[in-house]
Amino acid sequence: MAGKGKDASSSNTKGKKKEVKKETGLGLSVKKDDNFGEWYSEVVVNGEMIEYYDISGCYILRPWAMSIWEILQTFFDAEIKKMKIKNCYFPLFVSPGVLQKEKDHIEGFAPEVAWVTKSGESELEVPIAIRPTSETVMYPYFSKWIRGHRDLPLRLNQWCNVVRWEFSNPTPFIRSREFLWQEGHTAFMKIPNFLLLTKSCFISSCCRIKECLSCCGVKLLFLCWLQESFLVLEILELYRRIYEEFLAVPVIKGKKSEHEKFAGGLYTTTVEAFIPNTGRGIQGATSHCLGQNFAKMFEINFENDKGEKAMVWQNSWAYTTRTIGVMIMVHGDDKGLVLPPKIASIQTLNESGIRAEVDSRDNYSPGWKYSNWEMKGVPLRIEIGPKDLANNQVRAVRRDNSAKIDIPMANLVEQVNDLLNDIQKSLFEVAKQKRDACIHTVNTWEEFAEALIQKKMILAPWCDEEV
Amino acid sequence: MAGKGKDASSSNTKGKKKEVKKETGLGLSVKKDDNFGEWYSEVVVNGEMIEYYDISGCYILRPWAMSIWEILQTFFDAEIKKMKIKNCYFPLFVSPGVLQKEKDHIEGFAPEVAWVTKSGESELEVPIAIRPTSETVMYPYFSKWIRGHRDLPLRLNQWCNVVRWEFSNPTPFIRSREFLWQEGHTAFMKIPNFLLLTKSCFISSCCRIKECLSCCGVKLLFLCWLQESFLVLEILELYRRIYEEFLAVPVIKGKKSEHEKFAGGLYTTTVEAFIPNTGRGIQGATSHCLGQNFAKMFEINFENDKGEKAMVWQNSWAYTTRTIGVMIMVHGDDKGLVLPPKIASIQTLNESGIRAEVDSRDNYSPGWKYSNWEMKGVPLRIEIGPKDLANNQVRAVRRDNSAKIDIPMANLVEQVNDLLNDIQKSLFEVAKQKRDACIHTVNTWEEFAEALIQKKMILAPWCDEEV
Repeated sequence: MAGKGKDASSSNTKGKKKEVKKETGLGLSVKKDDNFGEWYSEVVVNGEMIEYYDISGCYILRPWAMSIWEILQTFFDAEIKKMKIKNCYFPLFVSPGVLQKEKDHIEGFAPEVAWVTKSGESELEVPIAIRPTSETVMYPYFSKWIRGHRDLPLRLNQWCNVVRWEFSNPTPFIRSREFLWQEGHTAFMKIPNFLLLTKSCFISSCCRIKECLSCCGVKLLFLCWLQESFLVLEILELYRRIYEEFLAVPVIKGKKSEHEKFAGGLYTTTVEAFIPNTGRGIQGATSHCLGQNFAKMFEINFENDKGEKAMVWQNSWAYTTRTIGVMIMVHGDDKGLVLPPKIASIQTLNESGIRAEVDSRDNYSPGWKYSNWEMKGVPLRIEIGPKDLANNQVRAVRRDNSAKIDIPMANLVEQVNDLLNDIQKSLFEVAKQKRDACIHTVNTWEEFAEALIQKKMILAPWCDEEV
Repeated sequence: MAGKGKDASSSNTKGKKKEVKKETGLGLSVKKDDNFGEWYSEVVVNGEMIEYYDISGCYILRPWAMSIWEILQTFFDAEIKKMKIKNCYFPLFVSPGVLQKEKDHIEGFAPEVAWVTKSGESELEVPIAIRPTSETVMYPYFSKWIRGHRDLPLRLNQWCNVVRWEFSNPTPFIRSREFLWQEGHTAFMKIPNFLLLTKSCFISSCCRIKECLSCCGVKLLFLCWLQESFLVLEILELYRRIYEEFLAVPVIKGKKSEHEKFAGGLYTTTVEAFIPNTGRGIQGATSHCLGQNFAKMFEINFENDKGEKAMVWQNSWAYTTRTIGVMIMVHGDDKGLVLPPKIASIQTLNESGIRAEVDSRDNYSPGWKYSNWEMKGVPLRIEIGPKDLANNQVRAVRRDNSAKIDIPMANLVEQVNDLLNDIQKSLFEVAKQKRDACIHTVNTWEEFAEALIQKKMILAPWCDEEV
C-alpha cells in the first residue's frame, strides 16, 4: 500500500516535518469469522500476495507469494534429487490423439482442457491442447526410452504451469485456471513376490508408514509393502512435511475413494487439510499409484532379466501453489496474513542467516507501519525507540499472538531464533488444536448429517462401495 | 542409449561371462564439418539432451539438458537477487485488448501468437492469446501499483515458458515454438540531469562499460551514462558471464540496429555469439531500454518528489534455453557433445564438491562406455585398470583434446580440480581463437560480399540509417 496517498515531502530533506500517512484504509473491511470468502479475497490482495487479473480465474503471483513458493521448491527439489529423481521439461502442448489415448483419464479432464486453434491469423490444421497434467505428454516417450530392465527405474520430475479451464468458483491459489506445480512421473519394474510382513514386523518399522496406516485402514496395510507403493508414500511424506514443517498446517494422510481417485490411476494417496471456518476438508497434494493402465495404453514394455517381455508399473505425484492458499486460510487473522517463520521471506536480522528488513521510511507513522507489516504477516516485529536505546534493548512483537518481549541487545540473535522457532511450533499447535476440535466420530446417518451441519470433520465407517 | 540391445545376462550373477555390447551404432553418422544441420540434430538426440516431440517445433528437454539450465538459473537468480530484483509469476494468458495496446510491439509479435479459442467443447467468448513475452501482460499492473516516487524502482523477474508459433526452420534450443526463459521488467524514475562525463572520466571507470563501448561505438558512449542504461548494461554483463564464464562461448556486446531492435522499445543491447561452421552470428541474449513507449500506452505515471505527475522509464531483458544450443554448436565435435566443466552435471569425484558418477555397468565393454560418455560430453573421464591399481594411480582423459594424464591417487582431488579449470579455460580460448580468426574488417561493398561468402564475421562501417 506504500505510496498510494499524497506525499509532498522529499525523502532527501532530513529534519523537515513529514506528512505522515493516516492510519485508515489499511486494515481489512471484513472479519474472518463474519464473511470468510470476502476476508480471503481481501487478505490475499492487501497482503500483496495476489493481484486479480483481467482474465477470470487467472491471478498474478506477486513477489510476496513467489518467495514462499521458492522456499517450498528449494526444499522439495533437494529431497527428490536425493531420491535420484531428475528434472526435465516436456512441452506445454499435447496433440489430441495422444491426449485421448487413456479413456478414463481424458474423461476426467476433457471438460477443462484449453485448446489452441489459431496462430497469428491462420487456423491450425489440428487443434492442440494445453496440458492439464502430463501423463499423456510424457508416456509415449517413456515407451521409447525404456527397452530393458536396466533402463528402470525411470524417475522424472518437472516444475511447470498447467491449465485447467474450470468454471466453478475461481479462488486465488485454491482453484485457478492456470497454476504452478511440480509433477513427478516414475516407471519401474515390479518384483512379483513382495514381502508380506506380519503385524509384528510392521510395528517395528518406520513410523511414517505406521501413520499412514492408522488413517488409511486395513486395505493399505498390505499395499504399503508392495514395491510400487513405496515411492508413492515417500513422496506423500514430503508433502506432509511441506504442510506441517514449513506451512505449519496439520494434514491427514489417507487414500482417496474410488470416486475421487486420479482419473486413469489405480489408487490415489493424499494429504488433506481442514479449514475450520468453512468446515471443509481440502485436498493438499496427491501421490498416485497408476498401476499398469497407462503402460498398457502407451505400450511401456521392457525385457526383464530373464529375457521375457514385461510391462512397467507407474506412479505420478504433484503439489501446487494451492499449498500457499491453504496456509493463508488456516493462519490468517483479522489483521491480515500470518506467515510461519520458515516460509517468511522476511524474518528478523540478516546476520546469522535470519531473513530481515529494516523499514526506515520516515513518511509513515509507527502505527501505520505496524499495520502494514501485520497485514503482510511478518512473524516478528522489532521496535527500537528512544527508551529501548537507553536501556540497550529492543522490543519484539509476535505476529501470531501479539505478545511483546523486551530483549537485551546482547542476546538478540539467540532470542530471536528461539522466538521464531516457538512461533513456528505454536502456529502448528494452534492450527492442530482447532482442527482436532472439529473431528467428530459418528456411527449413524443421523449423527453424520448433524455433524456436517456443525461444520465438523467426520470420522465414519467407510466401505468404498456403491450400493 | 543404455539397454537398447539384447541383454540376456542378469546383473546379479557375478562371475558369469557377460554378453558385451558391440561398439557399433553409438557414434554420429555425419561429421560436424560435412553437414552441420544433420550433425546438430544427431548430437542433441544421441547426447540425450533433446527428444523430438510429435508437435513440430516443440522439444523435450531431457535431464541432461535440464541440469545445465538449472546451473545457469542458480547463478543468474542469485545475481539478480543481489540487485534487489524480485521474482513473481504473471499468467500465461493475455486478453487481446491488452496485447494490442502497443502498436509497434504487437506488429512485431502478431504473426507468431498462439490463440486459445475453446475450452472443452465450448467456444470462448473472446479468444485468448498465449504470451510471446510479458510486457503487455505486466504493464497494466505496473500502472496500478506505481503511484508515488517511493514505489520506484519496481524490479521484477519471472522464470517461465513463452510461445512463439514460428514456421521457419524449427531447431532444438535455437528456434522452438515454446521455450523457457527468464524475463526481467523494471520501471524507474529518470533523473533528468545526468552526468555527461568526458572521455578522460570514462577511461578511468569500470572496464565493463569500456568493453561495451568498444563494440557499440560512439552512440553508446553517452547513453552509457544515462541512468536508464545502467541496469540494461549490468544485466547484459550477466549475460556475457553466462556465455563466457559458464558456457565458455565468446560473445560480443553490442547494440542492435533500428531494424533488429525489440518491437516497441527504444534501443536493444545484445550479446552475440558466432558459429564458425555456418559463418553466422547468433543472438545470445538481449537487454532492452524501453524508454517511455510502454509507459505512455499503459499510463504508468507517478507523482514525483515535487508533487508533479511524471512518467516512468522502463527496461526489459531475457535469456532463454537457446544458450544451451549455442554452447553445443560451438564446442561439440564428431564424437558428440563437449560440455564445459562448470555446467556439466557430471564432473569427477563427489568428495570436495566435484560432480561425479561411477559407471559400474558390467554388461558394456570399456570402449562402449568411453564412446557413451564422450557422446554425452563429460569433461573428464577417469579410468582405473589393474595396472593403475598396482601403481596407485588413475588415468584421466580429457574430453576436449583427448589428452591422457596419469594422476597419483594422493593428488587426485587437487589435480582433477586443476584439470577441470584448465578444460574450462581452454574451451573458451579455442572457441575464441576460432571466432576471432573469422573476423574480417572491410571498407567496400565488394570486400563485404566476398567476406560474407567466406562465412566471415564482418566489421564494417555502420550508420544505422536507411537510404
